[in-house]
Amino acid sequence: MLSLLAALLATPATAPPPPQPAEIVAAAPASAWRRVDPANLVLFETTVGTMAVELAPDFAPAHVAAIKALVVAGRFDGGAITRVQENYVIQWAARPEGDAPMVGQPPDTRPQRVRPRPLPPEFDRPAAGLAITPLGYPDAYAEGGFWNGWPVARDRGEGRAWLPHCHAMVGVGHDMPPDNGDGSELYAVNGHAPRHLDRNIAVVGRVIAGIEAHTALTRGTEALGFYKTPEEQTKLVRARLASSVPEAPRYEAMDTASPAFAAYRTARANRTGFFIRPAKAVDLCNVPVPVRVAE
Amino acid sequence: MLSLLAALLATPATAPPPPQPAEIVAAAPASAWRRVDPANLVLFETTVGTMAVELAPDFAPAHVAAIKALVVAGRFDGGAITRVQENYVIQWAARPEGDAPMVGQPPDTRPQRVRPRPLPPEFDRPAAGLAITPLGYPDAYAEGGFWNGWPVARDRGEGRAWLPHCHAMVGVGHDMPPDNGDGSELYAVNGHAPRHLDRNIAVVGRVIAGIEAHTALTRGTEALGFYKTPEEQTKLVRARLASSVPEAPRYEAMDTASPAFAAYRTARANRTGFFIRPAKAVDLCNVPVPVRVAE
Repeated sequence: MLSLLAALLATPATAPPPPQPAEIVAAAPASAWRRVDPANLVLFETTVGTMAVELAPDFAPAHVAAIKALVVAGRFDGGAITRVQENYVIQWAARPEGDAPMVGQPPDTRPQRVRPRPLPPEFDRPAAGLAITPLGYPDAYAEGGFWNGWPVARDRGEGRAWLPHCHAMVGVGHDMPPDNGDGSELYAVNGHAPRHLDRNIAVVGRVIAGIEAHTALTRGTEALGFYKTPEEQTKLVRARLASSVPEAPRYEAMDTASPAFAAYRTARANRTGFFIRPAKAVDLCNVPVPVRVAE
Repeated sequence: MLSLLAALLATPATAPPPPQPAEIVAAAPASAWRRVDPANLVLFETTVGTMAVELAPDFAPAHVAAIKALVVAGRFDGGAITRVQENYVIQWAARPEGDAPMVGQPPDTRPQRVRPRPLPPEFDRPAAGLAITPLGYPDAYAEGGFWNGWPVARDRGEGRAWLPHCHAMVGVGHDMPPDNGDGSELYAVNGHAPRHLDRNIAVVGRVIAGIEAHTALTRGTEALGFYKTPEEQTKLVRARLASSVPEAPRYEAMDTASPAFAAYRTARANRTGFFIRPAKAVDLCNVPVPVRVAE
């Protein structure tokens, strides 16, 4: 009794500190997570690691189908990371078909099993049908929110929604409009969110594991961060759908409609502990949706 | 005459495309640039390159003075990059004084020429006295703007202004409050702007050259991106004030009150050419202030 009293007296009569974002994520119940479908997860294996990219067929169905077809056809096998631009993007490319070899790559003389067709401009989609959880804070570009484990930007007036160019988001490279790309050149954001790209390119997914080995690649020295010589490029060994790789890890993304995510989002905007002055706000790309390896 | 007529007829009767941001920067007159004072430019020389950090004495005078004293005393010579965390910061440290060696570093047995004193919390400053050029677009965190070649955030109600945590901005590491650090541990933002750090740390400057070799360093595998072993760290060979290095390049930052900068800022928010749908907005950290080597 005396020691209990002493302990009580020694305890400051203040409320316990609010949990940190990482603590909220660690304590989130199983119901706060959704499975990442292995059929929509591409494992891009390079000489420095493997990038796991979750595709988002709800936002760019034709592009996602084209990318999956390229993966299954082996078109990314023997490709390369052709571009790393500081504070912008890393970009990788499939082997070209026919007699148009990539710089430093031999021509692909295999039968043309995949012939990309012009892809529609899946730069945004109707917001209708998406039960978007609002970010709850102003965003410089558009109304921010989340849906099914994805960050989402929305224009209510136009009734459109799209995946924003946050760190690690993946888009489909294309030449000048009206070219929309064919899914054979992909990029991932490696720096501050280049949101000016939103609605100008099809965003097709997000790197949910392995980006750090690839953002650490030496920057290319040519314009836009392209490598000058093929020797500088990092080889893309192969790409596979996780559903065809039984030994690949299974992942879960946080359910952005869950109470745990709401607490995480609020905590990101109101940091405590080290932070003597909480921002009381947070921008969309500063609330990365947590991902974990499924147990 | 005939060929001129033919040329005129061949030219589409549309207005010329508006200039791209890079074109505006390239065409900016000499009056649109301000000199980077070599006495406020620190050259951190590592085994992978040199980071040139412009210090901002108008925002953190005591911290800047402390850092310059450490540089002049040679305290950064033999230091190391101790931390690289994906999408957050790279951090480097001076050699410790006395008998508190840095991990993997021998004790510094030289006379203690610099004894850091507690530094004031220079996390923001009065906005009065700064003729801030407004960003002109909403920002998620605070009113954005520019002053004398720096991005600046402001709270009009409180009359305070501060340097925001944009890509390449440099701050002073510190332990839990009320510790404010002593200037011997510095970090630079390597990813999406962690604006929640604003007003919680002294921001003292910006890497204006050489960041790309250091953001490309392998990420540390310990908590917060610290390296596990000293062998993984990148050596800090030495640090010098550019004013003491006659052969060092001289730099200029764009004068953010100039018409050229206003055009650049507007063009960043209203991209053309590749961009079929201009954002018509831009966030503060997506308008990096241009820097060039002086001729």
